[in-house]
Amino acid sequence: MLSHDDALALDAADPLAGWRDEFIIPDPDLVYLDGNSLGRTPRRTIHRLHDVMATEWADDLILSWGRWVDLPTRVGDRLAPVIGASPGEVVVHDSTTVNLYQLVHAAIALRPQRRTIVVESTDFPTDRYVVDGIAKSLGLTVRDWGEGLDDDVAVVVRSVIDYRSAAMADVAGDTSHARDHGALVVWDLSHAAGAVDIDLHACGVELAVGCTYKFLNGGPGAPAFTYVSSDLHATIEQPIWGWFAQADMFEMGATFTPQTDMRRFLLGTPGILGLVAADEGIGITADAGIAAIAAKGRHLTDVLLTLCDDLGLDTITPRDPLRRGLHVAVRHPDARRLVPLLAREHKVVTDFRAPDVIRLGCSPLTTRFIDVYTGATTIAAVAAQSLS
Amino acid sequence: MLSHDDALALDAADPLAGWRDEFIIPDPDLVYLDGNSLGRTPRRTIHRLHDVMATEWADDLILSWGRWVDLPTRVGDRLAPVIGASPGEVVVHDSTTVNLYQLVHAAIALRPQRRTIVVESTDFPTDRYVVDGIAKSLGLTVRDWGEGLDDDVAVVVRSVIDYRSAAMADVAGDTSHARDHGALVVWDLSHAAGAVDIDLHACGVELAVGCTYKFLNGGPGAPAFTYVSSDLHATIEQPIWGWFAQADMFEMGATFTPQTDMRRFLLGTPGILGLVAADEGIGITADAGIAAIAAKGRHLTDVLLTLCDDLGLDTITPRDPLRRGLHVAVRHPDARRLVPLLAREHKVVTDFRAPDVIRLGCSPLTTRFIDVYTGATTIAAVAAQSLS
Repeated sequence: MLSHDDALALDAADPLAGWRDEFIIPDPDLVYLDGNSLGRTPRRTIHRLHDVMATEWADDLILSWGRWVDLPTRVGDRLAPVIGASPGEVVVHDSTTVNLYQLVHAAIALRPQRRTIVVESTDFPTDRYVVDGIAKSLGLTVRDWGEGLDDDVAVVVRSVIDYRSAAMADVAGDTSHARDHGALVVWDLSHAAGAVDIDLHACGVELAVGCTYKFLNGGPGAPAFTYVSSDLHATIEQPIWGWFAQADMFEMGATFTPQTDMRRFLLGTPGILGLVAADEGIGITADAGIAAIAAKGRHLTDVLLTLCDDLGLDTITPRDPLRRGLHVAVRHPDARRLVPLLAREHKVVTDFRAPDVIRLGCSPLTTRFIDVYTGATTIAAVAAQSLS
Repeated sequence: MLSHDDALALDAADPLAGWRDEFIIPDPDLVYLDGNSLGRTPRRTIHRLHDVMATEWADDLILSWGRWVDLPTRVGDRLAPVIGASPGEVVVHDSTTVNLYQLVHAAIALRPQRRTIVVESTDFPTDRYVVDGIAKSLGLTVRDWGEGLDDDVAVVVRSVIDYRSAAMADVAGDTSHARDHGALVVWDLSHAAGAVDIDLHACGVELAVGCTYKFLNGGPGAPAFTYVSSDLHATIEQPIWGWFAQADMFEMGATFTPQTDMRRFLLGTPGILGLVAADEGIGITADAGIAAIAAKGRHLTDVLLTLCDDLGLDTITPRDPLRRGLHVAVRHPDARRLVPLLAREHKVVTDFRAPDVIRLGCSPLTTRFIDVYTGATTIAAVAAQSLS
């Protein structure tokens, strides 16, 4: 089994180790394996927010809107290479829920004769609920992905990385399969962006959303993103018509005439404090390079899965490093009680996912191999005690 | 005409003058009459944001969600008395556009047999566009408020304060008039909240939205709010089903079962940085007291309107102080050019509203009578030059 010293040696050899200094780590002994729910705080973010508040807002006041107004597209352009999109195909705004609602509606409008939406019955709540709400309002049928596709399917909603098991979907294959049936796919990249080296263009992805507060370190409740392949920009329409999507918005014209580019997915006035925090988090990932981040992520989760095996912890995360994200799901009948106990008494922060999963996230820019080692061994010891 | 010394004397006698120290005012000579588009920066906000980033986020990480998760309702409860609502009737979240979209859909669902939405053709773009988008998707008719109501009207969307002229609607009368026709009204309080002493309960208002970045000093693009009278909580449903509206959200259940209170209007993960900034801005208004703020606002705009008259500036803002908000609209054929010129060369910041309005906002906690005096006399001098 991997030893404490082996873990330290892996950290010493880690080419990304220096990036940890970009983040505030008040307690180096805290084992934070929850980077997939909330990434750590970049130092740059504190400075940028202070600058935005004390200079841009306080000094320049309303005049700062000149530099703020295109932040959703500028931050989107920064995110684009991280997910294999081109500049002009991504905007950062609102929340995953709202953005998913927009894109599912937009996809249905592109397939007006079709009456079925497909979603995975085990997908993240917001994704399933949004689909159910849209289906109810439009009188459509919701079908489980497991039941297969047919030519009545307008749109499929799928997560790239399963929020519980970390299993990665076959993004290219499933997109192509849906296209064979004439259906569009909206991919949710929430657990994928900044974690795995996904190439949306290479996979033929046309529509995607995702959050920026997990592996992209954008801060609590940071704004989400919307991606639409440039091929669709001319024809796609979204349902919530707000002034930030309007061409010549400050003319305040009588009728809604949306922008002809990704700005047509914007809604109301964007929250600037959240956007600049997202910008800094995304910037660190872009600067460090997603290929190196994803490679370290595979290595971290390899080590963690092997440790779990050696320690007798039951995992449900795929073994193929190219078919999983950067968290590991440990099943334990007492998970609901163990997760807060681990945080409170053992300084190991994970999260609980009902009914029985302890989820351990490895965030390559801040998680060390020694964290993985300490986390796994502590969990195994506490879990064994719990069953004894 | 009011003199420079008269203005200084009014400031000296102003019981709210001390509140200006709660804000960062880097340049006391800047005449900022754009508080209605972006309120100034509260000192508390800088401290709170720093604390949230450096302590709650960086130190406590994911565990801070225990205190963040109910921020939309806690900040809403703080806002409630400012607008004459009860605790539990207001949530702060998302944007005015999204919240308006939700409430208009929710109102239509409560009047399923009716096929008409009424909006004012001169209302703020987002309000008109949102209504047009909903009407298009549901196959409903949009009618102008000026054309009157009938029993086919499901919902009326109105602004309490007109964004151009500052005219205040007869909120109680119009709500009652709509009710006589069986219609619901969604009021937009964006230019009213924190500016005028509106009492939603006394006016019989059932549905309202508004922003917090103007008179509430919540910061650039701060989250908006949704108000729903408690009478409607049991029956009202919104169209965007996200996990923050779900009862027992962390159980991540199979079907959407919304909260039975205002949390049913929440959507995705709320942006915490924006929310705490809104909290501080709203808190200052709540602490200073809306009655005192509104009284000073009426006085400031009285002085400003009288100065405009004396200086020969053409205004379109109502003279009755109880029938207007806290901005004054000056019409000038050269307004589009004058607004940036005034900011750049004369340190008088206003904003332009197409086609010919210079809008001057008086924000009682930060705008002094001397600002009003200097602003009006400068604008008159520059405007006269422009026409000569």
